[in-house]
Amino acid sequence: MPIITLTTDFGEKDHFAGAIKGAIYSELPEVKIVDISHSVAPFNIGEAAYIIQNAYKSFPKGSIHIIGIDSELNPDNKHIAISLDDHYFICANNGIMSMICQEIAPYKIVEINIHDKIETSFPVLDVFVKVACHIARGGTLEVIGKVINSIKPIKNLIPFVNDEKTQIIGNVIYIDNYGNVVTNISQAFFESIQKTRAYEISARNYKFKTIHNKYSDIVNFSIPEERRNDEGRRLVVFNASGYLEIAVYKSNTETVGSASSLMGLSLMDTVTVSFSKT
Amino acid sequence: MPIITLTTDFGEKDHFAGAIKGAIYSELPEVKIVDISHSVAPFNIGEAAYIIQNAYKSFPKGSIHIIGIDSELNPDNKHIAISLDDHYFICANNGIMSMICQEIAPYKIVEINIHDKIETSFPVLDVFVKVACHIARGGTLEVIGKVINSIKPIKNLIPFVNDEKTQIIGNVIYIDNYGNVVTNISQAFFESIQKTRAYEISARNYKFKTIHNKYSDIVNFSIPEERRNDEGRRLVVFNASGYLEIAVYKSNTETVGSASSLMGLSLMDTVTVSFSKT
Amino acid sequence: MPIITLTTDFGEKDHFAGAIKGAIYSELPEVKIVDISHSVAPFNIGEAAYIIQNAYKSFPKGSIHIIGIDSELNPDNKHIAISLDDHYFICANNGIMSMICQEIAPYKIVEINIHDKIETSFPVLDVFVKVACHIARGGTLEVIGKVINSIKPIKNLIPFVNDEKTQIIGNVIYIDNYGNVVTNISQAFFESIQKTRAYEISARNYKFKTIHNKYSDIVNFSIPEERRNDEGRRLVVFNASGYLEIAVYKSNTETVGSASSLMGLSLMDTVTVSFSKT
Repeated sequence: MPIITLTTDFGEKDHFAGAIKGAIYSELPEVKIVDISHSVAPFNIGEAAYIIQNAYKSFPKGSIHIIGIDSELNPDNKHIAISLDDHYFICANNGIMSMICQEIAPYKIVEINIHDKIETSFPVLDVFVKVACHIARGGTLEVIGKVINSIKPIKNLIPFVNDEKTQIIGNVIYIDNYGNVVTNISQAFFESIQKTRAYEISARNYKFKTIHNKYSDIVNFSIPEERRNDEGRRLVVFNASGYLEIAVYKSNTETVGSASSLMGLSLMDTVTVSFSKT
Repeated sequence: MPIITLTTDFGEKDHFAGAIKGAIYSELPEVKIVDISHSVAPFNIGEAAYIIQNAYKSFPKGSIHIIGIDSELNPDNKHIAISLDDHYFICANNGIMSMICQEIAPYKIVEINIHDKIETSFPVLDVFVKVACHIARGGTLEVIGKVINSIKPIKNLIPFVNDEKTQIIGNVIYIDNYGNVVTNISQAFFESIQKTRAYEISARNYKFKTIHNKYSDIVNFSIPEERRNDEGRRLVVFNASGYLEIAVYKSNTETVGSASSLMGLSLMDTVTVSFSKT
Repeated sequence: MPIITLTTDFGEKDHFAGAIKGAIYSELPEVKIVDISHSVAPFNIGEAAYIIQNAYKSFPKGSIHIIGIDSELNPDNKHIAISLDDHYFICANNGIMSMICQEIAPYKIVEINIHDKIETSFPVLDVFVKVACHIARGGTLEVIGKVINSIKPIKNLIPFVNDEKTQIIGNVIYIDNYGNVVTNISQAFFESIQKTRAYEISARNYKFKTIHNKYSDIVNFSIPEERRNDEGRRLVVFNASGYLEIAVYKSNTETVGSASSLMGLSLMDTVTVSFSKT
């Protein structure tokens, strides 16, 4: 029996996520349900795209991922199911899947068409759960939808590169629990433009000339621990998901501060990489 | 093996919810435990009542619902177990169950009396878990308590209607993750008073003459998406749980604002429906 | 199949906790995973120590506890696995386990040495999960690490007692979801110093002469409920975990206030117990 995961903007308090789990177990008592996140900012497609992209790969092949963000059915916002990379995704056609689909071509996309049998103002509960349980029982996508060829794109997904290829202009797409600031500049993309040139990264007035592989690379371990003063230092890493991230060492937004709070960086802000001429 | 659900005000951080799951699995390794919510505001009986009422119905018959809000045992606050609608509920006798019991008559209520065998300052862990596991193993309520006939009521549960039946005066009973404001005016109650009359809904200085069935009903889809300006618009719906709700389209308390933040509506505030004479 | 629990500072929003569950289920489809907490304050070793100490005891013998706080591998911060009290703990050697180890001697400690086979900047996902699954399958600690004899201590774990034994000077080590303030003064420690003497507890300008066993001990139940005014009253209890706690009756940081907010008590603040001469 495959795993069903949940990624929503329902929050931790309301009854929505609990109700959905109850509905799934009512249909499939033996299935495993895993919460990926219910704390996506309301209606924030970009955050949801980043979270599901980085979580789904750790799950077994055949897993079914319900994404409940901005899922009210209307003429602009159809429901879709996608099979891709041996995983299934059920969501609204609102751009959430375009980040993953840009990296890996979908195997099949259907626009869900079982709504004539279901009257609902809570489609994640009444439609997505039905589709997920259908797939979990081995059902095919064609039974619950009609095949389509493309999905709605998300904006600002790919960083801008100037014609001379001397600059990458990226955006902040996610701010994590540590207040670290994740950009849309992936390591693969960065290296394809960089070749072997030196670089300087700019975010607001802050400049960086090194991208680290892990946070504690900035620590000088030859100095005894009690005399070091690394907490709160700014740095740039390629994070565990492979994106350029502006971080603060051992940050805590509530106490020492974080990259977001100390440097004033917010979602959609610009981060620029400038390459030297040679 | 039935499902055991948890609804508490323990929050997401403390060890309480984890300890309870450990205790349940220690007794019943094969049971399924589902978190409904641990983010009920501390000691907020009304919020807990709304959450459990709207979540429990999605679970399979026979499910056992532990509600850990204000559960310290004292002369005013006994522990009860209720069988109702083929579900079981274990909680303090503090009003939490009166919202459900008003809609559906309980089949049986017992006041739990196993405390002489248990010395505890953490009754959800030491008493409610024992009762839940007893029921999950097929045990009867009479073994763990003595039958009683009524439970403590909750205040402000039912909206006020004037003698002429020209006005319903309701209250805000819940504010959801989107900052939408839920009242205690159910669709069934509203329609039983309305008959066929026109109506006007007032909350603070705001007036509404339409109740929608879903949020995007206010959108004019004939205008192209990029030229519409619907985010942040106020509206009234009967929500998926069947209650009159004052909402803001695609709200986010942190960014565009929400019904609660933009209109200054808080828990217990008044919402009035006035009916025309004919 | 044993239970694997998770205690981290990953927060509720990011993909980290979801990814870890996916990775565990990919290796062990039948295992049970239980979230203890993902809301430990970032890099807060003391909070994590308190949470895991109070949660683990409720789990069945043989359970495996992954603790993902400050776990980046570097010369100062090795990875360890500990068997203790018939439970297993996997974490960084950064002091988290010293609170438990002070109470119960570890049976075995190993420094994990499987890193040469794993390139990672997300060690909880890539190392801790591997170790946990190894143990869950019945593997021994020696296969994944080399035995060591001691672990890094945590600071301020034990309260100070003056030479005359007339004073205990403790610290606030945890503030719970109700804003109650937990000190490092355990009931056993308190009683070992107190003998039969009277005492006075001081926190900031507040003094207390009684330690209660439960919160509602301060309520006078002979007065009718509607005339009592106990909400918001300050008191001291030994909490369910056995630590001296300064509390506010039916507190809520957002509304009536809490011990932390009303009395201005923060992590690491001093709480003093003074004993009378006889």
